[in-house]
Amino acid sequence: MKTLSPLQQERLKYQPKLPESLKAGINKLVCVEKEKTEAVKDKEQIKELFAKTYGQAIVEFAVGTEEKASGIKNVGVILSGGQAPGGHNVIAGLYDALKQANKENKLYGFLGGPSGIIDGKYVEFDDKFIDAYRNTGGFDIIGSGRTKLETEEQFKKSLEVCKKLNISAVVIIGGDDSNTNAALLAEWFVKHDTGIQVIGCPKTIDGDLKNDQIEVSFGFDTATKTYAELIGNIQRDANSAKKYWHFIKIMGRSASHVAVEAALQTQPNICLVSEEVEEKKMSLNQIVEDMCKIICKRAENGKNFGIVIVPEGLIEFIPEMKDLISSLNDLTHELESDETYQNVRSEEKFKIIASKLNENNAKLFMSLPALIKAQLLMDRDPHGNVQVSRIETEKLLIEMIRTRLNELKDEGVYVGKFSDQAHFFGYEGRCAFPSNFDADYCYSLGFNAFALINFGLTGYLSSVKNLIKPAKEWVAGGVPLTMMMNMEKRHGEMKPVIQKALIKLDGKVFKELEAMREEWAMNDRYLFPGAIQYFGPSEVCDLTTVTLQIEHA
Amino acid sequence: MKTLSPLQQERLKYQPKLPESLKAGINKLVCVEKEKTEAVKDKEQIKELFAKTYGQAIVEFAVGTEEKASGIKNVGVILSGGQAPGGHNVIAGLYDALKQANKENKLYGFLGGPSGIIDGKYVEFDDKFIDAYRNTGGFDIIGSGRTKLETEEQFKKSLEVCKKLNISAVVIIGGDDSNTNAALLAEWFVKHDTGIQVIGCPKTIDGDLKNDQIEVSFGFDTATKTYAELIGNIQRDANSAKKYWHFIKIMGRSASHVAVEAALQTQPNICLVSEEVEEKKMSLNQIVEDMCKIICKRAENGKNFGIVIVPEGLIEFIPEMKDLISSLNDLTHELESDETYQNVRSEEKFKIIASKLNENNAKLFMSLPALIKAQLLMDRDPHGNVQVSRIETEKLLIEMIRTRLNELKDEGVYVGKFSDQAHFFGYEGRCAFPSNFDADYCYSLGFNAFALINFGLTGYLSSVKNLIKPAKEWVAGGVPLTMMMNMEKRHGEMKPVIQKALIKLDGKVFKELEAMREEWAMNDRYLFPGAIQYFGPSEVCDLTTVTLQIEHA
Repeated sequence: MKTLSPLQQERLKYQPKLPESLKAGINKLVCVEKEKTEAVKDKEQIKELFAKTYGQAIVEFAVGTEEKASGIKNVGVILSGGQAPGGHNVIAGLYDALKQANKENKLYGFLGGPSGIIDGKYVEFDDKFIDAYRNTGGFDIIGSGRTKLETEEQFKKSLEVCKKLNISAVVIIGGDDSNTNAALLAEWFVKHDTGIQVIGCPKTIDGDLKNDQIEVSFGFDTATKTYAELIGNIQRDANSAKKYWHFIKIMGRSASHVAVEAALQTQPNICLVSEEVEEKKMSLNQIVEDMCKIICKRAENGKNFGIVIVPEGLIEFIPEMKDLISSLNDLTHELESDETYQNVRSEEKFKIIASKLNENNAKLFMSLPALIKAQLLMDRDPHGNVQVSRIETEKLLIEMIRTRLNELKDEGVYVGKFSDQAHFFGYEGRCAFPSNFDADYCYSLGFNAFALINFGLTGYLSSVKNLIKPAKEWVAGGVPLTMMMNMEKRHGEMKPVIQKALIKLDGKVFKELEAMREEWAMNDRYLFPGAIQYFGPSEVCDLTTVTLQIEHA
Repeated sequence: MKTLSPLQQERLKYQPKLPESLKAGINKLVCVEKEKTEAVKDKEQIKELFAKTYGQAIVEFAVGTEEKASGIKNVGVILSGGQAPGGHNVIAGLYDALKQANKENKLYGFLGGPSGIIDGKYVEFDDKFIDAYRNTGGFDIIGSGRTKLETEEQFKKSLEVCKKLNISAVVIIGGDDSNTNAALLAEWFVKHDTGIQVIGCPKTIDGDLKNDQIEVSFGFDTATKTYAELIGNIQRDANSAKKYWHFIKIMGRSASHVAVEAALQTQPNICLVSEEVEEKKMSLNQIVEDMCKIICKRAENGKNFGIVIVPEGLIEFIPEMKDLISSLNDLTHELESDETYQNVRSEEKFKIIASKLNENNAKLFMSLPALIKAQLLMDRDPHGNVQVSRIETEKLLIEMIRTRLNELKDEGVYVGKFSDQAHFFGYEGRCAFPSNFDADYCYSLGFNAFALINFGLTGYLSSVKNLIKPAKEWVAGGVPLTMMMNMEKRHGEMKPVIQKALIKLDGKVFKELEAMREEWAMNDRYLFPGAIQYFGPSEVCDLTTVTLQIEHA
């Protein structure tokens, strides 16, 4: 029986590229302090909450003139939240740097996400262990989890585990929420004089953890390229068969970065943008109407096919749906123990729900297809909220469009034939073999995380910048986590959190999409990116994302 | 605005490899007659129906000692049926051979499938045209279509078009049905003394057009690798998050070749095989029961996740479902003009249907989830049949498994938590950039098709064999189409058709799967093939499929 695929065997041999500074060696680095920082918003509150770690300076690494010996630093590492390609390389980079600094150093991996550090479940890495995971996708090296590290009790337990293992620093690889937790833990460790440092690494395929200092989170590159491969293939199919409208929903949570990047790589006929829908207060009907216009116009030109990209979070950004979903969250909670409601069939349930909603919401709810009504009522997350990723927005749009097109056909406006195919891509891209970019970037982030540790820093996010240039020109350093924070309402309470980056309608990326989309809609400007290439011409296999190129060109 | 992706630019430059014989040049070939052939079954009937083209010899090409001049041969080419990666290369190979034989030769492409030759819609290819499509996926070069070329009138119209363009041969690139039509057209052209030859090329991602002489149809390699990439990525995700059972339905029509090949490339926990279900007369409940056993056992080991591959055609192979579907086909046809039925809601429709089915079918029908009931009633193809690819078998299985697991939980047998994700892959793989194998194979098939034409042959399928060896060792030649034929019932009538290859339970490929699947079910032997590579180490980028390796090793 085979144990490794041919590509996996080859990728294990790949040596990721490092920025020139880090390449010089961990013990030759000097740490250069740059400007002091402030929180992005709510400065006073953040300062108060992070009395010990607030306002630190941005740092960058340069190569010093002499090599210094490093003392012993044991480190524990955690993978937190959803998978993103490259997580294994962060750990490999961290491991290599730590061993390079001092062979006696130990790296522990906490198992199953943040719960690993609380429950003291861990492994110790050695060369053989790490080597089996270099340049591979997935988080299976130690597993991941979604436990939030935020209570006093959790911090205390974590401290005990760290003491037991003589750990002097914890690296948390995660998205905005996990890095918010990293900031809290860092502050708590300083406040309690534990001497334990905390460093974060920016992970998420969603691309919403970015700002002036963090150009992109890792995994975004590989995931978007994987989705773009599939969209491109489907476009070529649509353009060959000329008989289907493909509606492709793409993962990415609230933000539309993934959808927009995939669109820039493939040039589909339509790409919806959640942030635009919200800002322009577009109703569901208006979205459908706009799409029908394009479908009708293409049908006039004999084109009864096309490609629509739908960001996963869309439904929550449609003002009327947002309101409905929020009412339904309360209502279904209220009806949880109502036996009459629980024991009737779907159709009856819908009526009961409608009778308890306000007029607008009731009308909207009853106008939705049965499938969507059921999905809105069925799937709740542990907090009692609708799981938007499980609502088939793509099918909702298809149903509404079909109904509207039938009307337009009766009016003589629509002359075509509407056949649909629905797709949802998410899990396909989160664990792909990291692209060369993500392999290099992640390895650098991990290596760099240890450099930050070695200089005694805490409450920092590992940062590697200048990413549109070749790796040797990348700039390695650290960004204080508190500078990205502001106060936001979570579960009814104001909390310090890292600000999520959404698509800005006045930003360069959206402008680019906006400028081209009319052309894309009517004339088929499909691009076919194909599968991610790991070998071969540099123009093919070392590319960054279009978003990164536009934002940092 | 971009017009070509970086990979596309690079792939346009790729020079596909040819078998040594063809590489020597079209005008240096000699045609070696091998054994005479007989139809695979129903010899007498096939012989009668194909009086002029029956029983021809298998041919192979060798390199002669001298170069001969070729006369003028204009050729028309048709893409027929569903897309498969490499179609463009068949045309490129055909074009290059034709121009190499005689610069005056012209290649015409009929537009939109077989209807192009009937309606006289065509383009003439030149270098610039062809060069823009080399090594790309899709059939968009001239489009495809599903018109069946089989009536006297269609043949006559085709003849007129060929005469007008002075075409002396037609190449039909298609699956089993299209090549059946190629055989009919070849026979008709000979019978009517037209002097026009017909050559087929074996295309289909489904892999069901194969036999002693045809090792594999083109597109199977690329499509299965694309699906395996995605399944591998999802496996890595499942193994990292450890919380979902992923049910992945895969295209491939009736045969399970695609599902089985994808499974051999990825080693999932479960791979259903339609042919096994039929041969062992497994009921839906038994399939569900078998799967629940594995799910329960994994749950005992703390594994509440896994991967299930479901072949697209499964539902039709479950004896009880086959019977139900057949009754529903008649019934819905009957109810088409029944206003009472048409105007009631789904729930009422289901009851009306059940009242008209026999007891077993009624019971089975009512036991199905509402979603599946609705899909069984809604989607018909132009012949009034259920479109199986649109029935969400993966969701049917999920619903039934969920129900059964709840019972098993109550009985204390099941101790786990069942969360599911459903996927369907098909359109993602049909138009991918052809793998190096498919790029080479298709180019060779096309080049070889012209060699067959140049030797005056008709009613042949272009054949390139010995495919597990490097391209230079491939054996180019032709196989008489009639030798693959037998009589089968189509729309109530016995017709001559090319025999479809299904998975054989006593074949080497199924045996391999069978030998390993218990190990795969319980212990996670996931393989991660990753994206198709076009550059780099030969072990990665020039691989054939596991099926081909097993069958021809």
